Amino acid sequence: MHILITGGAGFLGLRLARALLGRDALALAGAAPQPITRLSLVDRVAPPADLLDDARVQAITGDLNALLAPDAQGPTRAVPVDIDAVVHLAAAVSGECEADFDLGLASNLDATRALLQACRRLGTQPVFVFSSSLAVFGHTPEQPLPSVIEDETLPTPQNSYGIQKFMCEQLVADCTRKGFVRGRSVRLMTVSVRPGKPNAAASSFMSGMVREPLAGERAVCPVPPDTPVALSSPARTIEGLIRALEASDADWGPRTAMNLPALSTTPREMAAALARVAGAEVAARIDWTPDEAITRIVASWPAGMNARRAARLGLVADASYDAIIRDHLRENPVRNMADGRG
Amino acid sequence: MHILITGGAGFLGLRLARALLGRDALALAGAAPQPITRLSLVDRVAPPADLLDDARVQAITGDLNALLAPDAQGPTRAVPVDIDAVVHLAAAVSGECEADFDLGLASNLDATRALLQACRRLGTQPVFVFSSSLAVFGHTPEQPLPSVIEDETLPTPQNSYGIQKFMCEQLVADCTRKGFVRGRSVRLMTVSVRPGKPNAAASSFMSGMVREPLAGERAVCPVPPDTPVALSSPARTIEGLIRALEASDADWGPRTAMNLPALSTTPREMAAALARVAGAEVAARIDWTPDEAITRIVASWPAGMNARRAARLGLVADASYDAIIRDHLRENPVRNMADGRG
Repeated sequence: MHILITGGAGFLGLRLARALLGRDALALAGAAPQPITRLSLVDRVAPPADLLDDARVQAITGDLNALLAPDAQGPTRAVPVDIDAVVHLAAAVSGECEADFDLGLASNLDATRALLQACRRLGTQPVFVFSSSLAVFGHTPEQPLPSVIEDETLPTPQNSYGIQKFMCEQLVADCTRKGFVRGRSVRLMTVSVRPGKPNAAASSFMSGMVREPLAGERAVCPVPPDTPVALSSPARTIEGLIRALEASDADWGPRTAMNLPALSTTPREMAAALARVAGAEVAARIDWTPDEAITRIVASWPAGMNARRAARLGLVADASYDAIIRDHLRENPVRNMADGRG
Repeated sequence: MHILITGGAGFLGLRLARALLGRDALALAGAAPQPITRLSLVDRVAPPADLLDDARVQAITGDLNALLAPDAQGPTRAVPVDIDAVVHLAAAVSGECEADFDLGLASNLDATRALLQACRRLGTQPVFVFSSSLAVFGHTPEQPLPSVIEDETLPTPQNSYGIQKFMCEQLVADCTRKGFVRGRSVRLMTVSVRPGKPNAAASSFMSGMVREPLAGERAVCPVPPDTPVALSSPARTIEGLIRALEASDADWGPRTAMNLPALSTTPREMAAALARVAGAEVAARIDWTPDEAITRIVASWPAGMNARRAARLGLVADASYDAIIRDHLRENPVRNMADGRG
């Protein structure tokens, strides 16, 4: 079985790649389990050596839109002709899309459309997992969201990223109806704790305010402490993507997007969990410095999901933010904080 | 005031143009009423002489996507620089979009996107009325629609036309949020009775099954007689578009699309109304010959709208199908049916 991951050198892409390579087999869309014999990772940069050294891994590097331009024969460099499934993670993040409307349309809408068209040209109806986002939900004073989001809640995105993700959900649904792909759109929650560096996502602080203090550094929480947020750990997020690959068409259900489960919490509760797990002196490294632009985006996102469809597939939210921090520490051991770096 | 109508030589475009030219003034988006001094009609063909002879009317003829390509200076041929409002009616219809996926994307999604970008380049935030459609709502056995559609009902389009219209609604909403245009998306119901000839819309029969028998010709109803349908007369439809031009931002409300009111009926009731208004021998000219492809599309559309937002703007559904037929006869006098043409 050959699986393609776009954004394959990003945080979720690498984690998904390692999870897939670590499995004996995958039951794609409810079919009999088969070993993964090939994994193609499309991204601007190549994946790290541990993945490149795996004989099953192929790196396809370059700009996604450029790689998706079909050559004279029809195939594209981004989409090998023998793929069985695609997990489309590549996207411009919310902050970038808000700052540059045209970049967002090109990186999110146009790239997804070109990827779907490339899959269509294959004629083999690959499984197509599209990573949408809770950012499709947004509320404003004139149009408040219900306190708990259902799978049937009307998305009213309040930023360009959410609009583009929601448009792509529609395109994935139609390409599925037309028989071009077997699409599954999953709405990812904000992932926390992401390892690595901050990025331009408005949600970036939801990892940074824990990750940086654990590494002995100060970090800013740019939203008021009691802002409700909906989170998912990296492990739960990857579980959701793999379940989307494995669910049969019947178990998956309608072509509309599926909300993944979320832990509902607040930055204040996250800081309290950090103090409980790592000590009050670590939590004290958070600077509570509200930023109006980020607060406006984050406050428009929903804080609670009733992820019924996901629950029927056996997917659950993280038990607590304490558990999320402990998972993060286990996977990203902190260098000794008493060594003077803090 | 200068108003641009795309699809301006189509049935609704011409009717809207005549309605606007017949008014003394228009209170655009709640501003003080002003006379319409210029009306630009963009379409593949020029409008008829009565409109071309009006000194206020300018015809811009050609393919919309080609006309929307910006020249070196930025303006496009489709969008005069001094427009105050756009009513975007041009679209490929449902049957065409279902038969040719790429044509639908180009004619509906790409053209709307290019039109919004052209308006954005003006820098003047024109009012932008987008004609969406009840086709954004679709039901399937796995995902039934509620019996009555509310403004907040989640659209789950079941054909490419509905998908493209719904994607455009998102883009209009985001361009409004960004301050590029003042967007208002109105979901038109199936218009009945359209004068003229049948077209490739799956809903075409909903006019033809009345129009052709009134003209002494036989016509096919391709769906089962008790298929529920949601209709609006041409007059009510034009009222809705003009109200979208005139409503203040506050009265218009959220950036999500507004459902227009609909008369809920069935082909059987429409035929009975035809018999009452024009005689049983006229209604007997309907051939009840189900077509599976058309039935599948039409049966996926909703049959009842609770158009609360539209009602708050004073918009109401037609009183009865009898009244719709009488309006049609008044506006399109039937030549003597006893002269042997029937």
